[in-house]
Amino acid sequence: MTDWVYRFGMSQTLGNSSMKNLLGGKGANLAEMAALGLPVPPGFTITTKLCTYFYDHQKSYPAELKSQVSAALLEIESSVGAKFGDVENPLLVSVRSGARVSMPGMMDTVLNLGLNDQTVAGLAKKSGDARFAWDSYRRFIQMYSDVVLGVSHDEFEKIIDTHKHENKLAQDTDITAQGWQDIVAQYLELVKAELGRPFPQNVEEQLWGAIGAVFDSWMTPRAVTYRKIHSIPENWGTAVNVQAMVFGNMGTDCATGVAFTRDPSTGENYFYGEYLVNAQGEDVVAGIRTPQPLSIAAKAKDGGNLPSMEEVMPNVYRQLCTVRAQLEKHYKDMQDIEFTVQQGKLYMLQTRSGKRTSAAALKIAVDMVAENLITREDALLRIDAGSLDQLLHPTIDPKAKRDVFGRGLPASPGAASGAAIFSADEAEQRALKGQSVILVRIETSPEDIHGMHAAKGILTTRGGMTSHAAVVARGMGRPCVAGAGSIQIDMVKKIMYANGREIKEGDILTIDGGKGEVMIGELPTLKAQLSGDFATVMGWADDVRRMKVRANAETPLDAKTAREFGAEGIGLCRTEHMFFDPERIQNVREMIFAPNEDLRRAALTKILPAQRADFVELFTIMKGLPVTIRLLDPPLHEFLPHAESDIRIFADLAKIPLDIVKRRLNELAESNPMLGHRGCRLGITYPEIYEIQAVAIFEAALEVDVTPEIMIPLIATRAELSKLKKLVDDVAARIYVRDGKVLPYSVGTMIELPRAALMAREIAEDAEFFSFGTNDLTQTTLGMSRDDAGSFLPHYVEKSIFAKDPFASLDQEGVGQLISMAVTRGRETRPDLKLGICGEHGGDPDSIDFCENVGLDYVSCSAYRVPIARFAAAQAVIRKQQKI
Amino acid sequence: MTDWVYRFGMSQTLGNSSMKNLLGGKGANLAEMAALGLPVPPGFTITTKLCTYFYDHQKSYPAELKSQVSAALLEIESSVGAKFGDVENPLLVSVRSGARVSMPGMMDTVLNLGLNDQTVAGLAKKSGDARFAWDSYRRFIQMYSDVVLGVSHDEFEKIIDTHKHENKLAQDTDITAQGWQDIVAQYLELVKAELGRPFPQNVEEQLWGAIGAVFDSWMTPRAVTYRKIHSIPENWGTAVNVQAMVFGNMGTDCATGVAFTRDPSTGENYFYGEYLVNAQGEDVVAGIRTPQPLSIAAKAKDGGNLPSMEEVMPNVYRQLCTVRAQLEKHYKDMQDIEFTVQQGKLYMLQTRSGKRTSAAALKIAVDMVAENLITREDALLRIDAGSLDQLLHPTIDPKAKRDVFGRGLPASPGAASGAAIFSADEAEQRALKGQSVILVRIETSPEDIHGMHAAKGILTTRGGMTSHAAVVARGMGRPCVAGAGSIQIDMVKKIMYANGREIKEGDILTIDGGKGEVMIGELPTLKAQLSGDFATVMGWADDVRRMKVRANAETPLDAKTAREFGAEGIGLCRTEHMFFDPERIQNVREMIFAPNEDLRRAALTKILPAQRADFVELFTIMKGLPVTIRLLDPPLHEFLPHAESDIRIFADLAKIPLDIVKRRLNELAESNPMLGHRGCRLGITYPEIYEIQAVAIFEAALEVDVTPEIMIPLIATRAELSKLKKLVDDVAARIYVRDGKVLPYSVGTMIELPRAALMAREIAEDAEFFSFGTNDLTQTTLGMSRDDAGSFLPHYVEKSIFAKDPFASLDQEGVGQLISMAVTRGRETRPDLKLGICGEHGGDPDSIDFCENVGLDYVSCSAYRVPIARFAAAQAVIRKQQKI
Repeated sequence: MTDWVYRFGMSQTLGNSSMKNLLGGKGANLAEMAALGLPVPPGFTITTKLCTYFYDHQKSYPAELKSQVSAALLEIESSVGAKFGDVENPLLVSVRSGARVSMPGMMDTVLNLGLNDQTVAGLAKKSGDARFAWDSYRRFIQMYSDVVLGVSHDEFEKIIDTHKHENKLAQDTDITAQGWQDIVAQYLELVKAELGRPFPQNVEEQLWGAIGAVFDSWMTPRAVTYRKIHSIPENWGTAVNVQAMVFGNMGTDCATGVAFTRDPSTGENYFYGEYLVNAQGEDVVAGIRTPQPLSIAAKAKDGGNLPSMEEVMPNVYRQLCTVRAQLEKHYKDMQDIEFTVQQGKLYMLQTRSGKRTSAAALKIAVDMVAENLITREDALLRIDAGSLDQLLHPTIDPKAKRDVFGRGLPASPGAASGAAIFSADEAEQRALKGQSVILVRIETSPEDIHGMHAAKGILTTRGGMTSHAAVVARGMGRPCVAGAGSIQIDMVKKIMYANGREIKEGDILTIDGGKGEVMIGELPTLKAQLSGDFATVMGWADDVRRMKVRANAETPLDAKTAREFGAEGIGLCRTEHMFFDPERIQNVREMIFAPNEDLRRAALTKILPAQRADFVELFTIMKGLPVTIRLLDPPLHEFLPHAESDIRIFADLAKIPLDIVKRRLNELAESNPMLGHRGCRLGITYPEIYEIQAVAIFEAALEVDVTPEIMIPLIATRAELSKLKKLVDDVAARIYVRDGKVLPYSVGTMIELPRAALMAREIAEDAEFFSFGTNDLTQTTLGMSRDDAGSFLPHYVEKSIFAKDPFASLDQEGVGQLISMAVTRGRETRPDLKLGICGEHGGDPDSIDFCENVGLDYVSCSAYRVPIARFAAAQAVIRKQQKI
Repeated sequence: MTDWVYRFGMSQTLGNSSMKNLLGGKGANLAEMAALGLPVPPGFTITTKLCTYFYDHQKSYPAELKSQVSAALLEIESSVGAKFGDVENPLLVSVRSGARVSMPGMMDTVLNLGLNDQTVAGLAKKSGDARFAWDSYRRFIQMYSDVVLGVSHDEFEKIIDTHKHENKLAQDTDITAQGWQDIVAQYLELVKAELGRPFPQNVEEQLWGAIGAVFDSWMTPRAVTYRKIHSIPENWGTAVNVQAMVFGNMGTDCATGVAFTRDPSTGENYFYGEYLVNAQGEDVVAGIRTPQPLSIAAKAKDGGNLPSMEEVMPNVYRQLCTVRAQLEKHYKDMQDIEFTVQQGKLYMLQTRSGKRTSAAALKIAVDMVAENLITREDALLRIDAGSLDQLLHPTIDPKAKRDVFGRGLPASPGAASGAAIFSADEAEQRALKGQSVILVRIETSPEDIHGMHAAKGILTTRGGMTSHAAVVARGMGRPCVAGAGSIQIDMVKKIMYANGREIKEGDILTIDGGKGEVMIGELPTLKAQLSGDFATVMGWADDVRRMKVRANAETPLDAKTAREFGAEGIGLCRTEHMFFDPERIQNVREMIFAPNEDLRRAALTKILPAQRADFVELFTIMKGLPVTIRLLDPPLHEFLPHAESDIRIFADLAKIPLDIVKRRLNELAESNPMLGHRGCRLGITYPEIYEIQAVAIFEAALEVDVTPEIMIPLIATRAELSKLKKLVDDVAARIYVRDGKVLPYSVGTMIELPRAALMAREIAEDAEFFSFGTNDLTQTTLGMSRDDAGSFLPHYVEKSIFAKDPFASLDQEGVGQLISMAVTRGRETRPDLKLGICGEHGGDPDSIDFCENVGLDYVSCSAYRVPIARFAAAQAVIRKQQKI
């Protein structure tokens, strides 16, 4: 019989933190904490396998589930000393989702389940607090109706508002027991009116309704969106955790809080968290009441004046500090915990590895190595290579004059400028048009995810450091200023006000997520600091990694940046970028229009000095490092004027009749330029183009004394490479003889067509190196144009037809096969064949992992991705070693 | 030491007919005939390896060549009893090229080499015929100057014309010995004036000059063109044959002739040839004098009145008949021979497998099987599958009224109509523009090859059945009427005249290459007769072949033709062809413009009845045979109007504002439509399109009771196929339940993307069949758009970068690897996976051979190629067996 149900915190805890795939993150860690002896309210987890079963069987359950749940519930009853549905001594439970990885705010939760018109009286009697009992009941009705029955939250809020208004009450805390009882009555009527049937009084029905709702929530659009953004497979499913309720809202000796064992924003090693007296957990996360700091030190640091837990509940605080130390020692990682204090007693409700900013991840990893908690290898694996990107992004120039419009919490570091936009949909629309956008909301909710993803930064006027906006923004690496209470927003007029000034929709503002400041206008930025912990960790990575990291660069600026970021050479210098220079394009165009080889040669000769000068500059910057230069690749059509006016200007300058220019433009137009007359096909049909490029390269190389690697693009068959290698060799020989100097160089090819990968054995006879051009190799292998895939690829990723966008992360099972094949075959012919990758994938950590595994010698990526690639290359080595 | 020289017809003959690669066809067969004891003048062959050496070493020879040539020449001298360069008793030799395969008229030849101002006197004395000696000398000077020294033939002809004019002589035969001597003096002056140095008198210099010229001739543009057309690799090279001269022009007991052992046009088993008394071989081939028939029977058959060889030289004729029988028995094939009679003695100068028309190939093969000369398998391999095409082409409707303009020889069968064009260049130009062209020439020469290739048919007014025009036209499968002497051509005015009528350039005419008639205007044609020998041979092929042959067809006409041609099903029914129907396109367009699924469905529902009716018709025609239907494949953009006026009409009819229509047109345009939103990507994003198509298919299938095979195009990953197979299965289930009927069907996929081939193991989990779409698979594997390759692919084929156009004949080493891989992997998952090919390559014999070898179940091609495919499939089986 399948075990669908795992118990924890009672007789025997079978689960543990390694069982996240089966129990979900929350369930596995509850079990682990219980086994550690921490105070965890008893409960049980229904496994993720059941979620899969549920969707595979038209949303039905296996027969044996009922008895397994009943048995576990019985043990909770005996453990807590209360009975589910009992009128005198009712057991209340929470029902929470818990997927394999945390999906904050994505999944639905039901608290206080087990209350009905009878048991509410029992709870009142047992707790001696009628107000608490009726408040709990109304919370339950409201939450259950929203999550399970589909009755909007807002309707219930209106009833409370009306009640407060009629009774002239300022806050919810002013409502009396009788008040809550009256509200409950109205709630029940509302549910009946909305649904045409009464609110379920049977607690079993309540329980199964809630379990079903958690499983249903796995497929809500917001969950689907979140999974899409975070590449979480649909078939992972969620677990359901049913746990005895503990109450942080039974009085002033009660509290609830969330904390990180270290500062998740900076990584500093102090106990960082928030709590609220006499509240339920949802109150902290929802950002409705402003939470209080945990410690006196933190209070001082924030400059706030709300009393800290250390002051208000010193004993419980000390106990919590012990738990903090115990958890960090046990998990060897920074933890994100939830706790509740019920009548002075601490209960742990959750622990999980805490989300953190990249800077925090770095600092925590480096500190934990120093504390001997983890090894350097652990530290390297602990940091998400992709998120290092955040550290490499610019911050606001400290010398810039800051016209501060308002202040909030520094919820996610980094600076961003853009148009203020007040809705997620509009933010997404504008971002699609290429506009930089700052999403401005009172507070964010899971419905805003797509807008947050589209925005450069996020600003909220309500909520704390653990509010939805803050957590999600940190996860996405977006700068975020949260809870900027001095700013008022008029959502209808789409204007925000502060200190008598206003920012309208579309106005440009800048946010500093590191300082929590909001500025009017766009501020100058400075590049990232790459010293300190970053340098330490990059040093460790460099010690570990096997693959070299090069940059794709052709401009002096890019090359300089690449060297600063630690690039060990240029893996792809696209010579055509030099052709697009406005001062040269006329010559390039005249070359294309030349009716014969002699005139083409004449035009090319005019281009030669400029191209040679480019190479001299590039080689000088990269001196001592290898530089791979790709000969002309794009179809000639790309260089030509397209607008009528440009065509006229060109024709005039070139002294070619307009109709001839237009005819040639037509001739050069292609149905599928990606598969057309480009790459080495240009070199084969117009050898003089490659010849002049080779001349420029060798003359420049002799001047600067570097070792050029000349790369022939779009090879499909060995004969192409043989011919063009001979052409390059002939040029080299000619120039070396002429100048009486000799320099080593090599000639290789891009492997960017399936046929080239298949014929690698033969091609390696002539090629001294292969560079996998995975952009084109992906396009051809999948038969998918990157320029056109926008009309269907998002749909494909959404429907899980592709797990990831194959242009962002290498299609390892398809394109990867061709790469593996080419590596093996190429090395059969030439054991010392140098192998690299120069597509976009060269900067993608997962793809870099693949490159390590197939044994490439280097990866090459854009300059700003170089540190990520260095880091990911190290992680790949460690992962590979761990597999062995 | 390398043997560069092989002797024949002397002490020892080392070569034989199996050594064509080394000795060339002519050299190998001269050796073989010598070994058979036939009368072959002694000589030697310089091997094709030397040609390769020559081009690899800046046109120089290996050191040892000279001594090998000298030794062989010495033996000729002793064998013939004459001495090279000897003043008294000079040996004359011919120097002829001889490549691995015959390249008629392509390579240069020098005869009578060894004559100079001294030896001419020796020849006169020895032969007792001064006129013959001086005529031979002038022929030698003229030929050597043209071929070796580059002095134009025409200049020499002018000297003869002037001489005849001044001496009032009608024909060359009227010129006296002294006349030729005078002409020789003028010839020598001409050469000296043209070159600035005298004609070489040293016979060794003459010999090496001629040898070098033969090797040089391998790279002349006309040779390069011929090789390109006939896919002959450049590195095969040519051999050089140096042979003692025999003379057909030493008097009236001398003759020269060419013959085929059977009729090369019809295949009839009679001795078919032509000869000329007192002439050299070149005179027959050049078509300058009208040749005479060999036998009395042939004379009667042609209705001519020139005396036959049987009458003129009965003894030699009988000897020749014996040789004919001996050669056919030995070679077991129809032979093309050249012979010379010198003073009553027969010499064999060449034998080779004779070129023939497809009809002749058929008849000869069938006859030889009946004669027990060859087996059925031999017969099948003896026929060029590709050339069967000729038999399948139309002939002129016998009931059509023939307005005969002129008559000539039936030089190559088949009928063709087109514009009369008088130059090869113009013919090529017009053909490129899509015009049908008949090339009209007085006689053709190798310089006309490109025009002959471009023309639909060829008409000449001079030359016989073995003239250049006739031989080349038969080889190319072009209809040809040769030697139409009743027609006069004015090449300047570009008009031809006959019987007081004229045809100007551009006027339409029709030629009947089977009857030798030229008609004014375009005549109606009948399709080919597929009975008789054709049916016999196809029957043998069907007995032998393993693979099924299907047709690519969607129209009723195509389907009917395909069945008549023996198609065993439809391998590719392109449903989009049904969408282009003018009556439906509006609905299709409205479907594309539908803003949501409901409206799209509504438009589709309007298309449904027509599509269903199409399927009913198609299924009815193909009843009892499998029909593979491909769901919609092309990008939607292809269905839309593009001309401004069409766009307006569409917008009006659809009642959609023009600007919205234009915007949507822009949205749907793609950079690389070949790699865009098409194939199954349409089915994934607009499932309702595939759904309606499936409905039409299943409803039609139930009506006609066939087994449909539904094919999903452009699959890259299994998930696509899983989703779409489910959609099809759901439709089938729904309709089967609704109609209470069940029919078997299968769902499979095109393998047309490299990724699909790589993932075949996974894809076969869902696919019941694979059909290799080699058009797209070639485009993606090579990264080469068929639409755009025109700008470089011809250059690639010309430069031997690709041996053949990969869109015409499968790229076996590249694309073939992917197919092999997919076959193996697919069958690993599903041993009974049905495998076929449906690209253009399905009708190409070489590609079909590949398909047999990788074990496909069927090939599918256009209806007219079905017989060729049936035949090629049989050949493939035999070749495979022979390999084992």
